[in-house]
Amino acid sequence: MATDPKFLKYVDDHQGDLIKRLSDAVSIASVSGNIAYIKDVEAMAEYLVQQLTALGATVEKRPIGKHTLEGKEVDLPPVVIGQVGNDPKKKTLLVYGHYDVQPALKEDGWLYPPFELTPDPKGSGKLYGRGSTDDKGPVLGWINVLEAHKNLGLELPVNLKMCFEGMEENGSVNLDKFIESEKDKFFSGVDCMCISDNYWLDTKTPCLTYGLRGINYYEIKINGPDRDLHSGVFGGTVHEPMTDLIALMSKLVTPTGEILIPGVKEMIAPVTDDERAKFEAIHFSMDDIHAAVGGDVTISNDTVTTLMGRMRNPSLSLHGIEGAFSAPGSKTVIPCGVKGKFSIRLVPNLTVAGVTEHVVKYVKGEFAKLGSKNTCDCYLTHGGEPWLADPNHYSYRAAHKATEAVYNQVPDYTREGGSIPVTLDFANILGLNVLLLPVGRGDDGAHSTNEKIDTSNYINGTKLLGSYMYELAAISKD
Amino acid sequence: MATDPKFLKYVDDHQGDLIKRLSDAVSIASVSGNIAYIKDVEAMAEYLVQQLTALGATVEKRPIGKHTLEGKEVDLPPVVIGQVGNDPKKKTLLVYGHYDVQPALKEDGWLYPPFELTPDPKGSGKLYGRGSTDDKGPVLGWINVLEAHKNLGLELPVNLKMCFEGMEENGSVNLDKFIESEKDKFFSGVDCMCISDNYWLDTKTPCLTYGLRGINYYEIKINGPDRDLHSGVFGGTVHEPMTDLIALMSKLVTPTGEILIPGVKEMIAPVTDDERAKFEAIHFSMDDIHAAVGGDVTISNDTVTTLMGRMRNPSLSLHGIEGAFSAPGSKTVIPCGVKGKFSIRLVPNLTVAGVTEHVVKYVKGEFAKLGSKNTCDCYLTHGGEPWLADPNHYSYRAAHKATEAVYNQVPDYTREGGSIPVTLDFANILGLNVLLLPVGRGDDGAHSTNEKIDTSNYINGTKLLGSYMYELAAISKD
Repeated sequence: MATDPKFLKYVDDHQGDLIKRLSDAVSIASVSGNIAYIKDVEAMAEYLVQQLTALGATVEKRPIGKHTLEGKEVDLPPVVIGQVGNDPKKKTLLVYGHYDVQPALKEDGWLYPPFELTPDPKGSGKLYGRGSTDDKGPVLGWINVLEAHKNLGLELPVNLKMCFEGMEENGSVNLDKFIESEKDKFFSGVDCMCISDNYWLDTKTPCLTYGLRGINYYEIKINGPDRDLHSGVFGGTVHEPMTDLIALMSKLVTPTGEILIPGVKEMIAPVTDDERAKFEAIHFSMDDIHAAVGGDVTISNDTVTTLMGRMRNPSLSLHGIEGAFSAPGSKTVIPCGVKGKFSIRLVPNLTVAGVTEHVVKYVKGEFAKLGSKNTCDCYLTHGGEPWLADPNHYSYRAAHKATEAVYNQVPDYTREGGSIPVTLDFANILGLNVLLLPVGRGDDGAHSTNEKIDTSNYINGTKLLGSYMYELAAISKD
Repeated sequence: MATDPKFLKYVDDHQGDLIKRLSDAVSIASVSGNIAYIKDVEAMAEYLVQQLTALGATVEKRPIGKHTLEGKEVDLPPVVIGQVGNDPKKKTLLVYGHYDVQPALKEDGWLYPPFELTPDPKGSGKLYGRGSTDDKGPVLGWINVLEAHKNLGLELPVNLKMCFEGMEENGSVNLDKFIESEKDKFFSGVDCMCISDNYWLDTKTPCLTYGLRGINYYEIKINGPDRDLHSGVFGGTVHEPMTDLIALMSKLVTPTGEILIPGVKEMIAPVTDDERAKFEAIHFSMDDIHAAVGGDVTISNDTVTTLMGRMRNPSLSLHGIEGAFSAPGSKTVIPCGVKGKFSIRLVPNLTVAGVTEHVVKYVKGEFAKLGSKNTCDCYLTHGGEPWLADPNHYSYRAAHKATEAVYNQVPDYTREGGSIPVTLDFANILGLNVLLLPVGRGDDGAHSTNEKIDTSNYINGTKLLGSYMYELAAISKD
């Protein structure tokens, strides 16, 4: 079934309206990790409900319990579920996205106010704003498809079930329980699943993504004095928590990226010839990554090593320290308690539990060697297993065809370095093949300052998501 | 010359009046670091002028230029200088104090309104209020001495020159220039100097303070990518600035406080027997420091080692990191540029320039070993030399006798771990022996909530300052 040309034309003809929708959504500062934005997260859920309802979907906001945010117990953002069509002759597609975003402050270095979608004044087509590409743009892509079909009086080629959450940037708390509890209810009868929450590897080549690294996020907490101290009065007399913490953090990873925690490297699955061949076929040059990071700061200058460093090997990043002095200027404080934050990206066969056992044992053992009277704790704050799908499944074949139709290009088959833990939950709990079908480009800057989506990706992405539905409807399951 | 007993009796008989004077001064909220209090700082200067004039001093308010406060260019608080007596047969004493205070808000946790001097209702004699001990109490101590002598019709035993500034809590901007410019005018003919702006080491033992540590504050700046990166996407492929910075910061100091920068320890002046004896004589128990920091987290359990760690050895504290994630929760960012902040407390013979040379060379050398493609800079942001006076100078001997007379105790000879940069300016520019003669106790909470001075310290402190003048007048310079 070729994609209905009226749909493609509608998207082209209504670009301004579709961008206006993205602008409206970006203006709702739905930061899930900060208690100050709780109302905005709620407002974003309500925005989706209203949009979907207006487009003829059956929609519900579902509460999924409470969690503790900055010391306060608060409701988790609701899961928004919606459905369009229930024809037993059609395949049923489940899509997932998230309506929450990472924090963003203008003073972090944004060119424009992060919660105002701002077109590049130079006319490049870039649309700047927090959530533009992660993940409001793709979520609205599905909504754009619904709008086009409703306004054109067209039926969707598949039954569509949608699941949009508001906690992806903050651990997707309780989503797994929700999936489990709705396995035989809302999620019953689903044939396959598509998630659009990742990116092209470069800025030119569409891709289908069949693997994700997992992530274990850790804190090392050091406490000593019961109040912050003046370094003039107490420097040289007490064990300083920062000194202990920095010593421990320095023992986790080398500046060339080698993880120093015994037992972790040993868990990595061996590379097969087939796997290496797939990596060698990917369109990628060192210039791509140098452009993406703004200079040659890569550990290797070999493309396959670099791709495997990103996609199929673990990595350890030190993110920061809570409780220490962090402002511009100088302050002569000895902080009384500090928390170091780091994460390890997981690949087959690293497991959340197995890695955590090695990490906690190692950190506590290293602390014991310091000879400090302070106290140390090290614990996992959240974990997500790595994931790998079958890239020859019919859903991937449909997406391959849709990509060729929209972009006139053969897609790369990639894995992502980042985690989307829900992918694994959906795949495991529902027993589904999950396709990751990115809309944005590799330089979109998700989680960074000046996050953007290109207008062409947002518009062609909408076409891609719609075309995928048509190809999926037509393709043989064999 | 023993202290005139009429003076001592006057102080005892007029305790209520003297406390009323402190109450009046505390009620003027002379916060120098906040533009909202500019009029109060001016009012406090004017209060001193009127008090001193009424007591027969020759007084001037001297402008010392402008500075930028909260983005606005404003006049610096004036320096108030005053003089009583000009008898060539008498010694001339210069005293310094400051009439500005730290910020204070009731809601920060004050028991009582911070700008209303409030006696402890439990009758402990504590007088709570911002500036009560830092530094209005001691400044008024000198004024109380003048009042007693005027009302009793007594001459001061020395010529007295006074210099009171209103910017001590905010960097003493331009005071060094003022001292330099008045070196041969107002400050000419001074024999020695006394500053009362520090504290007893404990709550029971008067002390004379003859040394201060200096401080060098440094930043290590690491830059790599030109924007923050997602650790999922880029972890394992790029040199991460945080990894480099943590590696460097871990090489500065051990968890037991040993400074690892070659050349720094070697600069420490050897400890003389006399010096060690002075430290051994100090009234101090490990319970004092454990109470002050809220637990046993001291590097040593030996009092002399601990006192020397605070007073006569350098220390290195890691204060924090600018540019990394520092909030509660988790963020999977690779910060593109980070600044690590640390300071080294200086003691003889560590110099600002000498230590900086070792630090910069070492940090850059260690960075070169990391094999990182990021960039590294390391630089001093501000420095202040250490200071050490001769504790056998006649001014110290006079203060020793005055302390014995007022308190019936031999004073401890202490050094302070923190810096009071004006001490060094007066000592170096004017070439004077400076005596630090504290009025308040170690638990007064200068800069904290619930700052207080004990009534007995305020009253006996007034007697001490007056008695010191008598002993100074009498003592031989040899």
